[in-house]
Amino acid sequence: MPTIEFKSPYLRRQNRLRQAMQKAGIDALALNPGPSLTYLTGLYFHLMERPVVVLFTTKRPPTFVLPELEAGKTSNLTFDLITRPFGEDPQTWPGVFKEAVKGLEISKNARVGIEPRRLRVLELRLLESASPGSSFTSAEDVIAELRMHKDPEEISAMHQAVEFAQNALQATLPSIQIGMSEKDIAAELTLQLLRGGSESQLPFPPIVASGPNSANPHSVPSKRRLQPGDLLVIDWGASHQGYFSDLTRTFAVAEILPEFDQVAKVVAAANEAGRLAARPGVPASTVDIAARNVIERSGFGEYFIHRTGHGLGMEEHEEPYIRGDNDQPLAEGMTFTVEPGIYLPNRGGVRIEDDIVITAQGSESLSDMPRDLRIVG
Amino acid sequence: MPTIEFKSPYLRRQNRLRQAMQKAGIDALALNPGPSLTYLTGLYFHLMERPVVVLFTTKRPPTFVLPELEAGKTSNLTFDLITRPFGEDPQTWPGVFKEAVKGLEISKNARVGIEPRRLRVLELRLLESASPGSSFTSAEDVIAELRMHKDPEEISAMHQAVEFAQNALQATLPSIQIGMSEKDIAAELTLQLLRGGSESQLPFPPIVASGPNSANPHSVPSKRRLQPGDLLVIDWGASHQGYFSDLTRTFAVAEILPEFDQVAKVVAAANEAGRLAARPGVPASTVDIAARNVIERSGFGEYFIHRTGHGLGMEEHEEPYIRGDNDQPLAEGMTFTVEPGIYLPNRGGVRIEDDIVITAQGSESLSDMPRDLRIVG
Repeated sequence: MPTIEFKSPYLRRQNRLRQAMQKAGIDALALNPGPSLTYLTGLYFHLMERPVVVLFTTKRPPTFVLPELEAGKTSNLTFDLITRPFGEDPQTWPGVFKEAVKGLEISKNARVGIEPRRLRVLELRLLESASPGSSFTSAEDVIAELRMHKDPEEISAMHQAVEFAQNALQATLPSIQIGMSEKDIAAELTLQLLRGGSESQLPFPPIVASGPNSANPHSVPSKRRLQPGDLLVIDWGASHQGYFSDLTRTFAVAEILPEFDQVAKVVAAANEAGRLAARPGVPASTVDIAARNVIERSGFGEYFIHRTGHGLGMEEHEEPYIRGDNDQPLAEGMTFTVEPGIYLPNRGGVRIEDDIVITAQGSESLSDMPRDLRIVG
Repeated sequence: MPTIEFKSPYLRRQNRLRQAMQKAGIDALALNPGPSLTYLTGLYFHLMERPVVVLFTTKRPPTFVLPELEAGKTSNLTFDLITRPFGEDPQTWPGVFKEAVKGLEISKNARVGIEPRRLRVLELRLLESASPGSSFTSAEDVIAELRMHKDPEEISAMHQAVEFAQNALQATLPSIQIGMSEKDIAAELTLQLLRGGSESQLPFPPIVASGPNSANPHSVPSKRRLQPGDLLVIDWGASHQGYFSDLTRTFAVAEILPEFDQVAKVVAAANEAGRLAARPGVPASTVDIAARNVIERSGFGEYFIHRTGHGLGMEEHEEPYIRGDNDQPLAEGMTFTVEPGIYLPNRGGVRIEDDIVITAQGSESLSDMPRDLRIVG
């Protein structure tokens, strides 16, 4: 790959988008701030009071409609673009949007792709008034298809985010002691994440769940203090260049109860089975089924109460979802979590989560911390 | 105020909403997850792949349209409600929305209020298909008017968020030394915020800006290390029960350069003038003008490059905005920041930010840390 392209993947991504739009019969794509916009332009905008919309077409350079205050962000880009800045008075915005759409040179009855889960009514109304004849249709599938196939820059950023996360947990483990609260552990881990190099906007605040709390996959760190015999689930991630890691490891506090030892071994085996099943060409469901089978065969099936994983990248949850009903074929460059768990109500839970990338031949785990039930405290 | 009301403000807020809707001629209000929904119901939902919409009318209890998985959140509430849960298959959602809207008993040509800056096209389309004759209109002013007037529970939560923030900075100051990086200070402050009791979702990651970086109000913590003579701007906040604090203090590293001493005194005087000008009945602009006049009179007017403040509560920025052109009259219970600053390009900046509440007689600062230019390092 020529260096110039490696340094600026955005033109390449925009070209892929153009091809995908043509194939899908979409004349224009309207994006507001969010990961898809950042993916295609390298620019990050806050979702704020004022509308920011970037319009892509199959022929013209991208058109940025944005507040004058933000227009500085579009200088020094590695691709051509058109800017349509607007001032403070909202009355003037419809006119600016109208000019912007006119400049796209698309038909009056264009099909305009949007992300219905991102675009707000604020932006939709401005686009509708700028182009009353157009129809606005979901382009989520088109964009997901692009973003699912990560390029080397993206994989490299995720690898770094995994490193930051692993190092941060490693630095936190020595401080974990009986009597420490879940909140205190979460605070220490957050410090280590930030100190270790993660961007300050973490993918999510760390989950630290001990004892009975660990039986709840969505537990929030509480004041509960660690007790001997507890299971301790830590689910955490770091962020690098806008890309996330998302890992889980489970520990035993001071001692391993025999019941938990067995559960942990089953989950580790399920995690391994899921990872080994991941390769190009098989449907996403294969990974879920492989992990789930291990847990079901060992009699804990009813306690594995969620899907095996989810895509990961610029979003905490994205395509491909690792579910038993997802026949999306896996392909090189796809990245997702494998995170089977067993949750025994009121007693405790074990989850082991890794971040996987599909390679040309099979798959690789970006994370490599030990997966067995280690003792802390 | 009777105890029962104090324990559950939501019914009271919903009643105020009903009156405001009647006054504004709005038949129904449709909210998706966000602070307004939490304000009215006490419930917190993530903005996710699936739509969650709560419908308020002037007569019936609120109707919750939500995934079955989330329906558990609506048990044990202190007010009546109707739930319309939907399953995993998106094909079934339009039918559930249709039934929900039918149950509202509003006219086929109803005026439905929405928040255009919150509601996504996903929810709008489902609402439109459920009620094709309805018109969807912005109710942002109606909701802002409610949320601007904080009740005692809200003020108390904000007071706690301010305490958490002040204590965290106090705990961080002794560790600040020459040679420490902005990132390291931000990490330590984040640790202290979480350890000190803040909810893990901070209002925003702390801003730590040193030397020339402090001349940029939106600086992001970098690897730059503190040098003697630097100004050091720290802008940070904590979160308690969903309410935010947002404070700024400026320090001098090792020594105070004479130029910066003068600037800091002017900003402190502007901050005080802004706070003293805040009282019920005067327009929000009064506060901006009072602070700005102090800076202009001292010859630094061109270096005060932003508004004096913004409303604060469940959002980092909300009504009332403290701008020279905002004639919104201040009233008891309004909460906002007063944060004048002087930014000398390439040299350094000083900002002093407090969180203010309008009282019956005047105003009160929730924050009380020293505002003078103290030396650290």
